[in-house]
Amino acid sequence: MPGVRHAVILAGGSGTRLWPASRRARPKQLLPLGPGGETLLEAAIRRGRAVAGSRVVVVTAEAQAPATRQVVPGVELIAEPLARNTAAALGLAAALLAERDRQAVLAVLPADQHIADEPGLTRILETALAAVDRDDVIGTIGITPTRAETGFGYLEVDDATPGVVTPVRRFVEKPDRATAEAYLARGTYLWNAGMFCVSARRLLAELDVHLPATARAVRDIAAGRTAAADVYPALAAISIDHAVMERAERVVTVPAAVGWDDVGSWAALPALRGVDADGNTITGQAVIVGGSGNIAISDDGTVIAMVGVSDLVVVKSGDAILVLPKTEAQDVRKIVDALSARGLARYL
Amino acid sequence: MPGVRHAVILAGGSGTRLWPASRRARPKQLLPLGPGGETLLEAAIRRGRAVAGSRVVVVTAEAQAPATRQVVPGVELIAEPLARNTAAALGLAAALLAERDRQAVLAVLPADQHIADEPGLTRILETALAAVDRDDVIGTIGITPTRAETGFGYLEVDDATPGVVTPVRRFVEKPDRATAEAYLARGTYLWNAGMFCVSARRLLAELDVHLPATARAVRDIAAGRTAAADVYPALAAISIDHAVMERAERVVTVPAAVGWDDVGSWAALPALRGVDADGNTITGQAVIVGGSGNIAISDDGTVIAMVGVSDLVVVKSGDAILVLPKTEAQDVRKIVDALSARGLARYL
Repeated sequence: MPGVRHAVILAGGSGTRLWPASRRARPKQLLPLGPGGETLLEAAIRRGRAVAGSRVVVVTAEAQAPATRQVVPGVELIAEPLARNTAAALGLAAALLAERDRQAVLAVLPADQHIADEPGLTRILETALAAVDRDDVIGTIGITPTRAETGFGYLEVDDATPGVVTPVRRFVEKPDRATAEAYLARGTYLWNAGMFCVSARRLLAELDVHLPATARAVRDIAAGRTAAADVYPALAAISIDHAVMERAERVVTVPAAVGWDDVGSWAALPALRGVDADGNTITGQAVIVGGSGNIAISDDGTVIAMVGVSDLVVVKSGDAILVLPKTEAQDVRKIVDALSARGLARYL
Repeated sequence: MPGVRHAVILAGGSGTRLWPASRRARPKQLLPLGPGGETLLEAAIRRGRAVAGSRVVVVTAEAQAPATRQVVPGVELIAEPLARNTAAALGLAAALLAERDRQAVLAVLPADQHIADEPGLTRILETALAAVDRDDVIGTIGITPTRAETGFGYLEVDDATPGVVTPVRRFVEKPDRATAEAYLARGTYLWNAGMFCVSARRLLAELDVHLPATARAVRDIAAGRTAAADVYPALAAISIDHAVMERAERVVTVPAAVGWDDVGSWAALPALRGVDADGNTITGQAVIVGGSGNIAISDDGTVIAMVGVSDLVVVKSGDAILVLPKTEAQDVRKIVDALSARGLARYL
């Protein structure tokens, strides 16, 4: 029996991986990084509407709720009192939606991703949702790898044919370089994109088994028996992957080649915004002479002038400037640590 | 007979080589680049006072006079209505000082230089001034080269012993790399630092011969027979080297090993400001992780955060950010050209 579909957009990240544009008070899903200045959150909501119509909820932290409402007024928010990773966030969403709608089926979509082929993704989600309706599976989306990426977890399968539902043999953690290359060569490993479909009922049942305290808490909140602020601090901060996916039965995936990428660092920006004739990606005022593969972002009219450098990331936002090689874009974390260590957390 | 010494500080440069800190309205000699925030102009005035006491004049452009007065209140200024290179600037200074003092001897000191050994320079200037008093020579200062520099002109001599007056065989233009290396190996080539001593009377006499229109104009201005603004536009824009030095008789030099460098690009900054334990030179708020040999300058509290880059120049000043390799610091000129070409001259 077909469930009633709800898209659940996970927008809780307080990530500093896009510092200095992203700050504690302005997470990356609220940045106008996409074409025409679209935020990642708006793009995720559009993808949710393609399978769930108007039934879209955004899960975010209370601290980010005002800024989130500004970006997507009129979209329903579930505001957590504090961040407790995805098991709690999705447990809460499932419990609230199950109260409203016993047949609720969730399409879970992280807000910090880019997808080039949105119609393709819609077809993949429809396939996963049909499998949920038919077999009560947990239906993940497994992205066909396009490079030997060490920054993502993987799903191992027997058959990675795009669009064809297949059982997940196992979830594997972020690999080292050699392992990632082996995965890519093998062709039976897919990126775990954090997107999946599941009935609210089944998700709650899995939490009952694998994370019972969280299950009780979110059911109590949804039923109005307790306040989220009272129980959230004690909840385990654990991902839905670790808490449920890796332990559950009947987990399938739909392999997808849809131009997916997470926007986990500045290096992802050329995929979102394209490159100019010199191979540079420029947002805002910048002049680049004799260099290529650079990313230059200025969000306040300050001009960035670069000469004779390539594959460099330069971001000016507010009171900070970031400069690092594109290949080491993940290392913005080191800057965040260094600023904290030197008493300069005001820049975070 | 000893003349009456006057130090003439040439501070007319509207250079953009230290863009974006230097702008059209704020030339580099007015930037607080030195230790303790000293400007290059203040340092040059101190060097002038060491040989001329209070008789120091600064030659600058009218457009820069207000900013110059702010930095060095109480120092006499000669303000040219517009820049016509050093022959006109020094001709005007010589004519004005000769009117006041027929025995005037000028110690000409460019304002955009750094000298580590100032007492050493004072001794060298005293030697040159003594030669002027004794033999009415033009007494240049020839800097002992410390590298095969292609950015300076050279003086060829027979004997480059520091501190010993020697005739200049010839002035040579900026050499190519191979020639510069040959000069360094030869040991009889000195950098032309633009510093020299000469009597006002002789300088004017040389201009009478080699640049008569300029000579007439500056004499007329000094005598009050004409206004500078009326005659300056028609003056030849030519350097004193090309106009006089290369053609004059009795030109000597005093070889000097005094830790001299011009501040012709950001690459000169480590010599002025020193380097930290990681080999980086930082002015203002900056955090550098895992890199060395960088120059990071922020003059307004904006934090510059750099990860995993080396030998890079990053300057934030006002509404602009410059990023370029230290080895190509001269290429800031390309940015200036590019900004002009794209209608972004407001950033200059």
